[in-house]
Amino acid sequence: VESSIPEDLRCPRTRARRVRDDYAPPYPAWVARASKSIRQVTMAYFGVQWKDSHLAAQANAQFAQLTAYFAAADGAAHFDRAVEIDAAGFTNLIAIAYWTDTTAFSRWQADSKLAEWWESRAAAGGRLGYFRETFSPRIERFETLFSSPDRMEGIGVALQGRSEQDVMDHAYWGSMRDRIPLSQTDALEASGGVIARTGLPASQRLRIAGHENLAIIRSGQEWTDTEGRERALYTTEMEPILRAGMVFLRDHGSQIGCYVNRYMQHVDASGQPLQKTFGLSYWRSLAQLEHWAEFHPTHLAIFGTFMRIVKELEFNLKLRLYHEVAVLSQDEQDYEYINCHAGSGLLRACNPG
Amino acid sequence: VESSIPEDLRCPRTRARRVRDDYAPPYPAWVARASKSIRQVTMAYFGVQWKDSHLAAQANAQFAQLTAYFAAADGAAHFDRAVEIDAAGFTNLIAIAYWTDTTAFSRWQADSKLAEWWESRAAAGGRLGYFRETFSPRIERFETLFSSPDRMEGIGVALQGRSEQDVMDHAYWGSMRDRIPLSQTDALEASGGVIARTGLPASQRLRIAGHENLAIIRSGQEWTDTEGRERALYTTEMEPILRAGMVFLRDHGSQIGCYVNRYMQHVDASGQPLQKTFGLSYWRSLAQLEHWAEFHPTHLAIFGTFMRIVKELEFNLKLRLYHEVAVLSQDEQDYEYINCHAGSGLLRACNPG
Repeated sequence: VESSIPEDLRCPRTRARRVRDDYAPPYPAWVARASKSIRQVTMAYFGVQWKDSHLAAQANAQFAQLTAYFAAADGAAHFDRAVEIDAAGFTNLIAIAYWTDTTAFSRWQADSKLAEWWESRAAAGGRLGYFRETFSPRIERFETLFSSPDRMEGIGVALQGRSEQDVMDHAYWGSMRDRIPLSQTDALEASGGVIARTGLPASQRLRIAGHENLAIIRSGQEWTDTEGRERALYTTEMEPILRAGMVFLRDHGSQIGCYVNRYMQHVDASGQPLQKTFGLSYWRSLAQLEHWAEFHPTHLAIFGTFMRIVKELEFNLKLRLYHEVAVLSQDEQDYEYINCHAGSGLLRACNPG
Repeated sequence: VESSIPEDLRCPRTRARRVRDDYAPPYPAWVARASKSIRQVTMAYFGVQWKDSHLAAQANAQFAQLTAYFAAADGAAHFDRAVEIDAAGFTNLIAIAYWTDTTAFSRWQADSKLAEWWESRAAAGGRLGYFRETFSPRIERFETLFSSPDRMEGIGVALQGRSEQDVMDHAYWGSMRDRIPLSQTDALEASGGVIARTGLPASQRLRIAGHENLAIIRSGQEWTDTEGRERALYTTEMEPILRAGMVFLRDHGSQIGCYVNRYMQHVDASGQPLQKTFGLSYWRSLAQLEHWAEFHPTHLAIFGTFMRIVKELEFNLKLRLYHEVAVLSQDEQDYEYINCHAGSGLLRACNPG
């Protein structure tokens, strides 16, 4: 095994891990590794939003236009397509795009064609909403975890590397934090609030600033390879419990520090659903995300059900799991919503003004 | 708040707590405190066992005889009566007696009348079984926790003291270990195995030696004071889930390091059940008890259900909770079984010979 923290980011800890030095995990997991030249990445969520089904064709065309830009110079290293029907009944078709070079992302976003298209979305009016939620964590501010050594997801695909061996820092409560390099010396405490930076009163176009140490998690599962009993257990027992937890966070998360939760399904380029989903949530702090995971009945139900299935299947799972977590400094976040409904993303959490 | 570890037992830690120094628990809890002269206590479980209901009167008479001895010179500081029907269908009526002075306990146990009665149980033959399971942890080897500052249970009653304030070391995974004074400098790892010390081949009388750092927990709940919605939630939702976890440990615990589990109900002197129960379990190691609590679906279901009820009742509970946990050195344990069935207590876990 090896440490989940890359060698060049290890430093003397002023904050202890949540396990003793002799801890050994009971089963393996792997992390993505960045080449040493990568110091900051971008994880950008671009969304198209609509409600009436007759808008779908138009929305899909705009989405196809958007994703075509990813192939341009300085474009994304990798992107996924995923869809969510939100609590207000709107469809949100989102491209999650990754850059391993944030300056390349900035050049790409400033590209005249993309910028022109984005600006024209506000001018276009109409009934489609658009948003972009951009996270650019420095390398010491995020961590990943994968249940299998092959076929990475998300930022792991973009980084094109993984730990040579399985890692020692997983399968205990608190390991998420311990895998974030900055946690060696920093409590990662949240400060400040979500504020609207610029915007029209009617929220037709609103730009939002996040606060220091806002935390995000994308936590996914793929059941493509499952068969027989495992597949039945996933679809009839695991998925409904997972969904209930996701709906709780979506509808009541604000009580416990969760600003946004989207339970999303991957779709292919033609919009067909794949056998992959993920929860995407934004939190006031890593501590509040941890507290939900460790103590909230909805997550204990998810985790307990999963552990029950793991035991029944004697640890032989074809289900694939991964997550990526980032704790962002204030300057590593950017949110913009055009023509979106008031419950969209961070709009809901934002103090107008 | 104050540390759960008594002032005179605090020392520089060579092993970190599982939380940071700035951790503050979200709700209060209290611990029992011993006066400084108390260095070692005894927790003794004396059982009478029978199967056929026509033996009940005889068993109860023997049990009454036993408990009468507690009032003798050097007798128990406190004792409880509790009953369990075990997996083999036997009734086990157990007196749990506490001494705050282990030398007094030794004198009491050597007392001619008690010793004579105990020796005569083996000679009596018949169809009643008897056992005694005696734990005498030094003060640095056990911890307690109470959800209310009044009305202690178990060793807390015997010690007659509690923390002045609520304690800082609770409501996080791993806090049980962190409250045990010895854990400041010791991993409390198990070594050795359970062995039969002396005994007849047919197990008519068997004395067993435990191993280093065997762990025991008595974890109880009282619903006497609950009313209305809380009472309904306890009896219809909490108790069945708790019972399922107890049955799992009883029947399958050996797979995960649990030697013995008894889910017991308090009874009064006339045998009438009180509205109090506890789980009593013996484990190969504290680490295995921790692992069950943190990761096993049966405990996650118990804990998740409890947290759901706590939230529904907005933290206004009249349910009373407590536990006491000890990690014992080899010389602090003594087990003896007379005429008990092979699945009784540590008999099940013992390697004959």
